[in-house]
Formats: sequence, C-alpha cells, structure tokens
Amino acid sequence: MSLHLIIGDKLLSSWSLRSALALELTGAPYTEELIKLGQPDTRERVLKHSPTGKVPLLKSEHGVIADSLAIAEYLAEQFPDAGLWPKDTAARAQARSACAQMHSGFFALRGNMSFDLSRDEALPSIPPEVQAEIERMLALWAECRATATETGPFLFGRATLADAYFAPIAVRLRTYRVQLPAVAEAYVETIYQWPAFKAWQKAGLEEVGQ
Amino acid sequence: MSLHLIIGDKLLSSWSLRSALALELTGAPYTEELIKLGQPDTRERVLKHSPTGKVPLLKSEHGVIADSLAIAEYLAEQFPDAGLWPKDTAARAQARSACAQMHSGFFALRGNMSFDLSRDEALPSIPPEVQAEIERMLALWAECRATATETGPFLFGRATLADAYFAPIAVRLRTYRVQLPAVAEAYVETIYQWPAFKAWQKAGLEEVGQ
Repeated sequence: MSLHLIIGDKLLSSWSLRSALALELTGAPYTEELIKLGQPDTRERVLKHSPTGKVPLLKSEHGVIADSLAIAEYLAEQFPDAGLWPKDTAARAQARSACAQMHSGFFALRGNMSFDLSRDEALPSIPPEVQAEIERMLALWAECRATATETGPFLFGRATLADAYFAPIAVRLRTYRVQLPAVAEAYVETIYQWPAFKAWQKAGLEEVGQ
Repeated sequence: MSLHLIIGDKLLSSWSLRSALALELTGAPYTEELIKLGQPDTRERVLKHSPTGKVPLLKSEHGVIADSLAIAEYLAEQFPDAGLWPKDTAARAQARSACAQMHSGFFALRGNMSFDLSRDEALPSIPPEVQAEIERMLALWAECRATATETGPFLFGRATLADAYFAPIAVRLRTYRVQLPAVAEAYVETIYQWPAFKAWQKAGLEEVGQ
C-alpha cells in the first residue's frame, strides 16, 4: 500500500501532527511532503493536491483523503489489526466522540494558545473562556480513562487515535506552562515520551534551528 | 438494541437532524427525546445526559455517545448490513472526508444562514465569504458524485451518511432561496423528497404551528 502524507510545518501544524501520529500507529511505511505554511504560494501548492486547500492530506491508492478525521478512519479501516481505535465497543465510541469534540470545538483554547512546539512561555493571564475549555478538556480525558478497558498510560491504555488527537493539546498545555493536576501532567509527559511524538518534535524544532 | 436519541427543536437543530437521518438509515427502531433549545434550563437539562452540554446525544447499550459524527460511525459499525457509508473504499473515504469538512467548517455559511425549516426568504445580499463557501459546497458535492459507484439521486447514489450530513445545507439553500445550478437544485429536491427528511420537516413545522 502506498501512503503519502502532505503536511504543514512540523513546528506549527497541529492537524498535520495528528495525521502523522495516526500513520505511526499503523506501523506502515509512508512518505511525507512538507508544504511550508504562510508563504505566498502555500495555498496554491496545497490546491494542486486537493480542492480543500488545507493540510493534512493523505494520498492513497483510494485517492487523496482530506481532513485528519477522515484520514484516521481510513487508516483504522485499512489496518484493522493495528488497533488504531480501542477494541472495546463502548471505549471506541467514547474515543470517537472525544476526537469529534476536538475536531469541531475548543476554539477559545485553539485561538488563544496557538500551537508552536518551540514556545516556552505562559500567557500573561488565561482568559476565562480558555480556562473553561481547559477544564472541559481535562474532564474529557477523564471520561476517556473511565471507559478504557486496556492498561497503559494513554487515554485508553495503549496509544490510539485519541492520543494522536490530543497530543497537540498536551503540547499547548506544556508550552504555555499551564498548571495541571497530577493526572493531567502525567498524561502530558506520556505524550512527550511517545517515540512517534518525540521524532516529530525534534524535526519541528530543527525547522527553527533549535 | 436499545437506541434513544436526544435532540433539540426539529425546526432549528441541524445537527440533531443529521443524527436522526443517520438513525433512519439503519432501519432500526429508536426512541426520541426533545430538549427545547434557548430555554433557561436547556443547558442544565442536556448536562443531565452528557458533560458536553450539547445535542444530539445517542443513548445506547454502549453508553451515551456525544457528537453527530461519533454517532454516525457508531451506527455504521453496529449496522454493517445497512450500508450507512458507501460500500466502495474510495467512495467511503470521500464520504467521510466530506462529512468531516462539514463537521469542522463552513462557518460563514452556518453563521449567516442559520438553520430554520420555516424560513422562506433570501438574504438581502449574500456576503462574499458565504458565496465562496456555497461554491465550495457545490464543488464538494460534485467531488462526492465523481467517486460514487452506485446509482441513484443521492451524493453516492443510494442515501448514505453523507446525505444525512448535507441535508441541513439543502434546507439552507432552499429556505434562503439561493439560486443554484440545475444539478445542485436537483439534489436539494432529492433531500426534500427523502421520506425520512419529510417526516422531520413536518414535525419541525408543527412546532411553530405551520
């Protein structure tokens, strides 16, 4: 199977990170193509691959798949033995719900704490709507853990697509130095120790010479 | 299997409509509970069922599933013979991509043309960002048709979750009297003739005595 992932800057593109982690979960080889964001020709370059004009995109034998969630479901289907979603039905439903909530929400958190792997500075103050979303996020993670049937430090025990989806939130919480309860801090550290994430982080920091 | 769908007003809740149409595609019986939107106790009533505070919600033997896309995937999995997604892999990937794009985008269209089944009036003028999204929507529908391998008037031939997802857009285009090319107008009419949609529309209009 030929898989080619088109991404934005590793330093900045949180949605690209989600798809790269999803691909890593499959264990399958794939190639990667980076389109630098914020350049005069960025949109034109992306439009050559997809009418959405957005990254990430997955080029596969079944066409160009736009959107990280569609990519995730496609990979889960193509690699059924890799266990991209939790194996238990109720846990899987919760994992999908959590990813869908991330996919269409948390706009205050996303807008006020933009993703940048090289950041290491708190906001002067956390706006109340951001604080509310951080609290909702921690509750959502707890809801995931409560339905998990496998053991391990990730949201559903083993690493799954849910962790691919929330890794960029772990980055925001750490790089904006948000004070967290111990269980959330441990999860952030789990993400930062995830080899697939570490490789992406290293490449992202190298983009800015760090 | 016990399925209980919690929705907002049929007149106004486009995301509830999506989940109701998804349930209709399964052919399975289900019960329904309506929580009136915009009331002083709306949020409190929804929070009794789910910490998301949002509808739709599906109560199932596998827990309460929040978010229309997670509900869609759950139902597709539980009813594999009902063909909720297109059977062809490439078409299915495109269908999922289209639904994901709807799930996390088209905010200008959604914000400027709010869903109301009883409306029958054009906007004084269509803002350029809305016009751009309408054009992108029509292109997305064409991309779906281009990958369809089954015959019929819906986006992928037979009615699928993609049509459940775009039915509320058909409503907006008709109720805001947007001028459309013939192929798009035919699709809007296909939605309006879909028995599952017609039943919902009738109930929605009855909520305001129409």
